[in-house]
Amino acid sequence: MTTDRIASYVAENAARFLDELTALVSIPSISTLPEHREDVRRAAEFLVAELQGTLGMSTVELIETAGHPLVYAEWINLPDKPTVLIYGHYDVQPVDPLELWLSPPFEPVIKGDDLFARGAVDDKGPMFATLKAIQSLIHTEGTLPVNIRLLIEGEEESGGKSVEAFVSAHAEHLRADCALVLDTAMVAKGVPTISYGLRGMAYAEIVARGAEHDLHSGVYGGIGPNPLQALAWVLADLKGRDGRINLPGLYEMMQPLSDEERAALARQSELQEKELLSAAGFREMSGESGFCVAERASARPTFEVHGIIGGFTGEGAKTVIPAEAKAKVSLRLVPGQNPAVVLALLSKRVQELTSPGITLEVRPLHVGDPVLLGLDSPVLKTAARALEQEFGHEVAFLREGGSIPVVALFDQLLKVPVVLIGFSLPDDNIHAPNEKFHIPNYYAAIRVVAGFLKRLGAKAEAE
Amino acid sequence: MTTDRIASYVAENAARFLDELTALVSIPSISTLPEHREDVRRAAEFLVAELQGTLGMSTVELIETAGHPLVYAEWINLPDKPTVLIYGHYDVQPVDPLELWLSPPFEPVIKGDDLFARGAVDDKGPMFATLKAIQSLIHTEGTLPVNIRLLIEGEEESGGKSVEAFVSAHAEHLRADCALVLDTAMVAKGVPTISYGLRGMAYAEIVARGAEHDLHSGVYGGIGPNPLQALAWVLADLKGRDGRINLPGLYEMMQPLSDEERAALARQSELQEKELLSAAGFREMSGESGFCVAERASARPTFEVHGIIGGFTGEGAKTVIPAEAKAKVSLRLVPGQNPAVVLALLSKRVQELTSPGITLEVRPLHVGDPVLLGLDSPVLKTAARALEQEFGHEVAFLREGGSIPVVALFDQLLKVPVVLIGFSLPDDNIHAPNEKFHIPNYYAAIRVVAGFLKRLGAKAEAE
Repeated sequence: MTTDRIASYVAENAARFLDELTALVSIPSISTLPEHREDVRRAAEFLVAELQGTLGMSTVELIETAGHPLVYAEWINLPDKPTVLIYGHYDVQPVDPLELWLSPPFEPVIKGDDLFARGAVDDKGPMFATLKAIQSLIHTEGTLPVNIRLLIEGEEESGGKSVEAFVSAHAEHLRADCALVLDTAMVAKGVPTISYGLRGMAYAEIVARGAEHDLHSGVYGGIGPNPLQALAWVLADLKGRDGRINLPGLYEMMQPLSDEERAALARQSELQEKELLSAAGFREMSGESGFCVAERASARPTFEVHGIIGGFTGEGAKTVIPAEAKAKVSLRLVPGQNPAVVLALLSKRVQELTSPGITLEVRPLHVGDPVLLGLDSPVLKTAARALEQEFGHEVAFLREGGSIPVVALFDQLLKVPVVLIGFSLPDDNIHAPNEKFHIPNYYAAIRVVAGFLKRLGAKAEAE
Repeated sequence: MTTDRIASYVAENAARFLDELTALVSIPSISTLPEHREDVRRAAEFLVAELQGTLGMSTVELIETAGHPLVYAEWINLPDKPTVLIYGHYDVQPVDPLELWLSPPFEPVIKGDDLFARGAVDDKGPMFATLKAIQSLIHTEGTLPVNIRLLIEGEEESGGKSVEAFVSAHAEHLRADCALVLDTAMVAKGVPTISYGLRGMAYAEIVARGAEHDLHSGVYGGIGPNPLQALAWVLADLKGRDGRINLPGLYEMMQPLSDEERAALARQSELQEKELLSAAGFREMSGESGFCVAERASARPTFEVHGIIGGFTGEGAKTVIPAEAKAKVSLRLVPGQNPAVVLALLSKRVQELTSPGITLEVRPLHVGDPVLLGLDSPVLKTAARALEQEFGHEVAFLREGGSIPVVALFDQLLKVPVVLIGFSLPDDNIHAPNEKFHIPNYYAAIRVVAGFLKRLGAKAEAE
């Protein structure tokens, strides 16, 4: 059977596939930091060279954008077969705090079954697995079972503006029958997982300004404006100790959950809660009461503070009242909640929360729409069968807490069914120090993608 | 008259005195930053060389401590005359935010009547004026009118532990009839000012810890512990929007103000309020209602946040929930409030304010006792007359909002009357970018100190 040929090919080339991924994760393609601009381009060029190599793609392009380049490739040779649009991203998160990494983030290390490096699982490993699946199919079959468009971006971790502009401008050119994205999570190790929902995102910076320059607390303590204290008041008001977000109108916009979904989330909570706690090393969940862990983490809006800076933060003591302080915050949004509307609510609420002598500014940094994908598309069932064959376990259908802004465009603009197959584990430390990819999941991803594409092609033949 | 001889000498040597001070303020003696350790020592050595030069001191010592060195010198030659213990500090505050300085902080610049440099007014300028006063007396009179002990420390801006240990251990050796400190403020330009109160200080760092490592808000948003949000809740609770500090027991410890003091503070507020606002460039005072500006700034306890750091603070957006966040905070304390007791209250209260999954730690950084000096000591009256002769204006007696921890020791341990004469102006930007010293105040300080010492000597003769 052909799938065995794929499995054999993957097994024979396992070391090379891992070496190639190791080379890719060695490139510090941190898209949000201007000083890594050239590194981001190097990662794009690495993929272009890979796609121009033994993958047999008919078109390979490095597309310049206002931000980081896009990598686009296609193999369109079978008029009677469906076309699959595969999306991934080659950029990675920043690495700080660097001191918590056990090995340098861009010097990949293999320990046991894990490859440690920034970007290993988010998203270089799973994204690269789709290329290796194509290569495996070409080398074992001499052809691909379906037509392929590959779109790989370099700004997923910094707002994704360029890919959104590109997809919006070239919707016709990107015509496909379905889209495949490997950038989500598994419920637990060994449990194949398809995500059908993604949260949206409204990310902003709140800037608090007081005096024209820093003040001495011996002179101005008790009378002058303190932007750090002002930020504390704002942040404590925006989210209370009960976990409720105090943005009037926010909860009213939510689409209601069905009883069935809520029951599934409760089952998912049982599966995930212990693993989430032990992976992160804390003892007690926080958040809104009255909702199970999985619902809070994927089907409720959240408000989180990502960073605060202001005043004296060196060693020792300085009795300064700073002129300015900043907080980075975001809301994860669920279907029904429009990010631009939410940013407007946030801006209005923050203004209401100002204090004497303080001016507050809300600077939007990026937005992404929430997505809720239909569970009844035939391609989803095809993907589920490919997964079940690989893992020998029933597929879990999941709402993902994270956000992949371009998926909303695929869903709403391209109007194609989107299949989100997850390969990251709860303890893979995504966005954190010591990010890793569980290497067996790398090979599983290659086999699953190849199997999924073959099934899609065979199904088209049967029709 | 001899005072005219002093004035002439100061006038003739004005350029040299300013050059010498410029050399001293060029040394980046930031005591709180370990990387400036050698610079701090250089400043101490500069003073030792100065004291060994033409000042005629009989003993000059650089005294090693567990921290930065002390500079000690004495001139004890007149058994029938009183001994004056002069205190000052040669260390300075950190310079950040560096980008707000109009000229580099350790490249002194003279603009108009002002010398701009970190430490110019706090406290190198006024401290050095006491040395120049001694030099002026020696050179014009051939002797000093009183016995002198000079004690200059290098840790005033970072806790002052070494000078406190030294004074405690050598109380007998430091025997004096009064102490003179030039490290406080003038109510307004041209208004000679003696401070009779100093606030105490309880400075601590609050550390909030959540998970073992940073978390991804797409996975842990809404369920994981967020140390930044936890800090916001703590800080917003510790000081409410009404300016009240929520530390049960804090206000109960205060010594009450007399009606006379409160009336004086109200008059002082009228004098200061506009100048404080315009010097700092904000429009509206904040703080506790029901108390005038001067009372809030000098006779009420305050709680201020000096710095917060945690999470992602670079350019752009990162959706991280940090494992740890820190806030530096201090309380300024008034007579009756013991700093150690207040730190214990703070620690207890912070523990009560924790949130699920968060551990909070309060790390004491330094403490200083509040001081309230008697207004009826004869040396205070002598100092007032020296000031009135210089400025032709009645002396204002002031409670100072700042803290000079060693003054409490002089008062309580050495039991000497302490005279605090101020030469910093409201717009001198102490502890802030563009710190400056009003140069006419430098020469005034030299003449006032010389005049004060001469009056003390003459008075002893008359008795």
